[in-house]
Amino acid sequence: MRAVVKPGPGPGMELRDVPTPGCGPSDVLIRVHAAGVCGTDLHIWEWDAWASGRLKPPLTIGHEFAGRIEQLGAEARAEGLLQVGDAVTAEGHIVCGHCLQCRTGNSHLCVRTRIIGVDRDGAFADFIAMPASNVMKLEGIPLEIGAIMDPVGNAVHTVLEGGSVPGSSVFVLGCGPIGCFACGVAKAAGASLVIASDLNDMRLDLARQMGADLTLNPGRDDVLARIREVTGGDGADLVCEMSGHPAGHAQAFAAARLGGRVNLLGTPSRSTEVDFARDIIFRGLTLYGVTGRKMYSTWHQMSRFLRSGQLDPRPVVTHRFPLEGIADAIAVIKDGKAGKVMLEIAP
Amino acid sequence: MRAVVKPGPGPGMELRDVPTPGCGPSDVLIRVHAAGVCGTDLHIWEWDAWASGRLKPPLTIGHEFAGRIEQLGAEARAEGLLQVGDAVTAEGHIVCGHCLQCRTGNSHLCVRTRIIGVDRDGAFADFIAMPASNVMKLEGIPLEIGAIMDPVGNAVHTVLEGGSVPGSSVFVLGCGPIGCFACGVAKAAGASLVIASDLNDMRLDLARQMGADLTLNPGRDDVLARIREVTGGDGADLVCEMSGHPAGHAQAFAAARLGGRVNLLGTPSRSTEVDFARDIIFRGLTLYGVTGRKMYSTWHQMSRFLRSGQLDPRPVVTHRFPLEGIADAIAVIKDGKAGKVMLEIAP
Amino acid sequence: MRAVVKPGPGPGMELRDVPTPGCGPSDVLIRVHAAGVCGTDLHIWEWDAWASGRLKPPLTIGHEFAGRIEQLGAEARAEGLLQVGDAVTAEGHIVCGHCLQCRTGNSHLCVRTRIIGVDRDGAFADFIAMPASNVMKLEGIPLEIGAIMDPVGNAVHTVLEGGSVPGSSVFVLGCGPIGCFACGVAKAAGASLVIASDLNDMRLDLARQMGADLTLNPGRDDVLARIREVTGGDGADLVCEMSGHPAGHAQAFAAARLGGRVNLLGTPSRSTEVDFARDIIFRGLTLYGVTGRKMYSTWHQMSRFLRSGQLDPRPVVTHRFPLEGIADAIAVIKDGKAGKVMLEIAP
Amino acid sequence: MRAVVKPGPGPGMELRDVPTPGCGPSDVLIRVHAAGVCGTDLHIWEWDAWASGRLKPPLTIGHEFAGRIEQLGAEARAEGLLQVGDAVTAEGHIVCGHCLQCRTGNSHLCVRTRIIGVDRDGAFADFIAMPASNVMKLEGIPLEIGAIMDPVGNAVHTVLEGGSVPGSSVFVLGCGPIGCFACGVAKAAGASLVIASDLNDMRLDLARQMGADLTLNPGRDDVLARIREVTGGDGADLVCEMSGHPAGHAQAFAAARLGGRVNLLGTPSRSTEVDFARDIIFRGLTLYGVTGRKMYSTWHQMSRFLRSGQLDPRPVVTHRFPLEGIADAIAVIKDGKAGKVMLEIAP
Repeated sequence: MRAVVKPGPGPGMELRDVPTPGCGPSDVLIRVHAAGVCGTDLHIWEWDAWASGRLKPPLTIGHEFAGRIEQLGAEARAEGLLQVGDAVTAEGHIVCGHCLQCRTGNSHLCVRTRIIGVDRDGAFADFIAMPASNVMKLEGIPLEIGAIMDPVGNAVHTVLEGGSVPGSSVFVLGCGPIGCFACGVAKAAGASLVIASDLNDMRLDLARQMGADLTLNPGRDDVLARIREVTGGDGADLVCEMSGHPAGHAQAFAAARLGGRVNLLGTPSRSTEVDFARDIIFRGLTLYGVTGRKMYSTWHQMSRFLRSGQLDPRPVVTHRFPLEGIADAIAVIKDGKAGKVMLEIAP
Repeated sequence: MRAVVKPGPGPGMELRDVPTPGCGPSDVLIRVHAAGVCGTDLHIWEWDAWASGRLKPPLTIGHEFAGRIEQLGAEARAEGLLQVGDAVTAEGHIVCGHCLQCRTGNSHLCVRTRIIGVDRDGAFADFIAMPASNVMKLEGIPLEIGAIMDPVGNAVHTVLEGGSVPGSSVFVLGCGPIGCFACGVAKAAGASLVIASDLNDMRLDLARQMGADLTLNPGRDDVLARIREVTGGDGADLVCEMSGHPAGHAQAFAAARLGGRVNLLGTPSRSTEVDFARDIIFRGLTLYGVTGRKMYSTWHQMSRFLRSGQLDPRPVVTHRFPLEGIADAIAVIKDGKAGKVMLEIAP
Repeated sequence: MRAVVKPGPGPGMELRDVPTPGCGPSDVLIRVHAAGVCGTDLHIWEWDAWASGRLKPPLTIGHEFAGRIEQLGAEARAEGLLQVGDAVTAEGHIVCGHCLQCRTGNSHLCVRTRIIGVDRDGAFADFIAMPASNVMKLEGIPLEIGAIMDPVGNAVHTVLEGGSVPGSSVFVLGCGPIGCFACGVAKAAGASLVIASDLNDMRLDLARQMGADLTLNPGRDDVLARIREVTGGDGADLVCEMSGHPAGHAQAFAAARLGGRVNLLGTPSRSTEVDFARDIIFRGLTLYGVTGRKMYSTWHQMSRFLRSGQLDPRPVVTHRFPLEGIADAIAVIKDGKAGKVMLEIAP
Repeated sequence: MRAVVKPGPGPGMELRDVPTPGCGPSDVLIRVHAAGVCGTDLHIWEWDAWASGRLKPPLTIGHEFAGRIEQLGAEARAEGLLQVGDAVTAEGHIVCGHCLQCRTGNSHLCVRTRIIGVDRDGAFADFIAMPASNVMKLEGIPLEIGAIMDPVGNAVHTVLEGGSVPGSSVFVLGCGPIGCFACGVAKAAGASLVIASDLNDMRLDLARQMGADLTLNPGRDDVLARIREVTGGDGADLVCEMSGHPAGHAQAFAAARLGGRVNLLGTPSRSTEVDFARDIIFRGLTLYGVTGRKMYSTWHQMSRFLRSGQLDPRPVVTHRFPLEGIADAIAVIKDGKAGKVMLEIAP
């Protein structure tokens, strides 16, 4: 089968012919329909410090996908819950099920997590094998949406964790694809006011399409002053830090209301100076670090939003390429002009 | 001033001239603009067992209202947070602030609760005096909506308590005014599917106007079968029991999904037979008895919904009367043909 | 191997020689050290309406056990987390992992639950095969305690669900083995006051040994009056209904404080009359139906209590029999004079 | 009456004769029995940047106290809940009751908070006037304990916020008086393991007296390695950062388990470098800034612990002085050799 492979240490990827993966007794073999390309894939392409420290090439890349079941292992077949031909997506974090985190509702933080396309072969290929327990039927969700439920799930996790969104004011700081999804999730979840900020006007336009009530460009707008103005002086109930920019953190803390919450998804590449007394303690803030998707409450809520039509992430998809266009896909992401970029692999 | 008074034991009320209430140091005197008429007022009119056991006439009736501040007591004035002329509404439950319930976020269950229009003089009058701490500025919410925030708040409390509404399926059992409000609240809070049932088609029509996706009439529809059908066989995540009908309880439990929640607001006039093992324990249900409004998180969330336009309760208001029309107002409620009934007291 | 088997419809069980169960790729074969005998096993012995409607004999009985791993399936071995010889216990509810309940942290309510000793072969035998994901290492917890972690877990689930136990007052209504365990759990969890009631003084004595601060016998004591007295007139923060007696429900509701919680584990054999308005709604109570153990947060908290010595359930164990003594074990349970009864199967 | 007063800008305090405070209609006048001296009082004594920016002298100092009611204002008397002679303590944060924070259960973050001994006259005096709603009856709690319920409440807030303490592992980083109280609170709340660290062995000794299972001195011990060792490699479920030392933050984050929680009470005097990606986001941590005491759930839980004897903070009290010994009291705190220091004002 065809697969986009990191052949060895160093930049780049190759489209190669590799053996179709085997399907163990608890596994499901899936014919990939489409896959999302992620910032992580750019790091892997560029072979940065993180990538070179973690990946063991050769490896098939790609962790966001949807497709149709081609084959079921004996145990998965015996369960009778999945069938050949089912349209499915899958959680790409494969976890141990036995550690403290797995046993207490925090599988997304499993100490033995193995991520497809990072720690084992991924989804930029004609087929991928997944444990049946990671696989979910789409049941009416279009395959092209299914292919990006991984990053939409990051947004759902970020927006819904820990607070009561209905009636609240949500500030999304950073409008990459996941930030744009977060705007849509917050509206779907009943937020009264969604504010989005980014330096890139194209991204702010996508955020508006996804439902942001107010978009701010720190290049032009006094972001904090405007947020205070539209929240009656209180600040935002929830801040979703999606930029990963060190300057974003100070702004995130200052934008939150007293007793508010800052959920952090964007991963800064360097450390940040924090005035804990002034910004966190005296203001009674809660901070939460977002990793992956909660398994599987995030997927459940996301599926409800998608099936009801409350949330449609497709306006964020700006580019589509065939599997052999992986270099172009990586290029448009690097360029900073893309929303979500997808690979269309099978009809 | 004019006031609708229960003059003594027995049915009926009278429009009388009574002294304007005094305004203590912590009090606010409010000129009433409009007031809602409630099922409770019907019980008081009819002098049923509950009313005759609790009220000590003569007493001014009415507990749902909005108006403008006419006068401030010395301490309320010193606080500087309320001003003469402010458009306000108020929580009608006056609580002690010292009991276990008041000290732990459950003031709505204060053992010393005194309700306006029930335990002390109420709002069907030109003026009412309220403790400043019970008074909230409307800040953009129209006075006619302010006048029914008490029952809208019952709906907010019922829908939002204890579960995560975004993406969920909500079944509202019973479409009196509060049931209709609950449909609107559930939609505003991001429910994916709102199902409403009532035997009265006029009420189902109001429920649809408030946002119910599916309305069922038990006289025609197999309610449980239809709920299972539209929830993929699971049942509803949240059931709001607003009918108070003993038969409603069994249906409420059966309509909830395994692990679901039943919030009970409707107060049945007699006891109900419950099969706890089959209906509650083996199904892992949570039941919650709704009293009043949470002080004041319910009011806060409601205000957000109302100011943003996510929720507009006005379609439920079917009748408006002047203060002297109290007998007519009571009559249309008794008749069962009304949605919400209001008294318009001052321009 | 030896196994206690329900051979066909009708009362009784038989000790038989049966084939050792096979061990599938995801399974673990366990040599049983000890097993707990439960009220459910008495229902199965007596072949009551529930048992005859659910069991399909022939079937090996028993669902509470601990033992040592004898053999690992290929996938379980590949995971590397369990080893031959490990002392283990297991959750006896085998769930599908795919339904709404399994996907949202409520596996204990899985619609496809299969219970060992009820729906598939159980643990009153020399060996039992279990899915590896249901198996937990004891890591320092004695095997004899491991054998009763199923019912201790019921108590943990009942006491810890939904409220904050530290500093609270807990009323345990019904002191069968799980009620007695609940007394110990409440003390371990920091309850300030644990009250236990039962008609049987032997059981009240066990409750005291497990930490109950006050024991009440409804045959002698005015239970509600005493609870009000020792709680400053408030009532109990949490009531654990463990009796399953229809009269227990009314008392449970009345004993809870305004805004309190009643967690229901005891399963009544008939329906109960409930005055919802007076007892649930006006009192703002929360009721919760307890099924099984939360998978696996209940097990995690229980393990912590057991390893630290905060909880020791052994005082509740009053009788121990060899596997061939199953008829005697059932007899002492039926007799009502036992606490927890165990079978000692292997050294 | 006598009062310890900050007479004007600059270091020091004076014992002066000042008028007894007036008692407004909603107020209670309290004869002070004893008062706690706090690190904040040291800042005020020294007139540091914070103190000189906030206090408006002349002002009576002191915010931790207990005493007996001497006089009730007219409204407080009419309520009938407090009586002359009652032994009481009081929450020293006087809040507005109207802001978003006050209306949503976060009064401890009220934007208009006025603190006794900081923003208005305090408790190092023969009498203090307090709003009746801030006053709580001790009902069996000794007056000398009542006098330090303010800082014990900080510890209760820090330990109990946001997680389920029963069965958990708690690491208290910094053993000043509040850290020592936190050790006792964690044990009372059912923690399985309490670890405390400090550079000062005298403080570690107090922590042990309060219930710490393991004490670590970073001058001698590899704190992180030891924590990992005693938590089976997982790290602590809850870290209470009580040191306020910038180096404490990095250690607090590293000591928490994946998905764990860090509650921050210690206020660092300068900013801290944080690697959000590595320390917070990829580890799924929750951070929470602790201000004051939750009004009044913290007080309620604390009272339960104190009345039941589960918690006794008295071992932490190392020094007692008369009112005129304020300079000595400040000196022993500055010296770093004291646990909790108290002023004994009236018999």
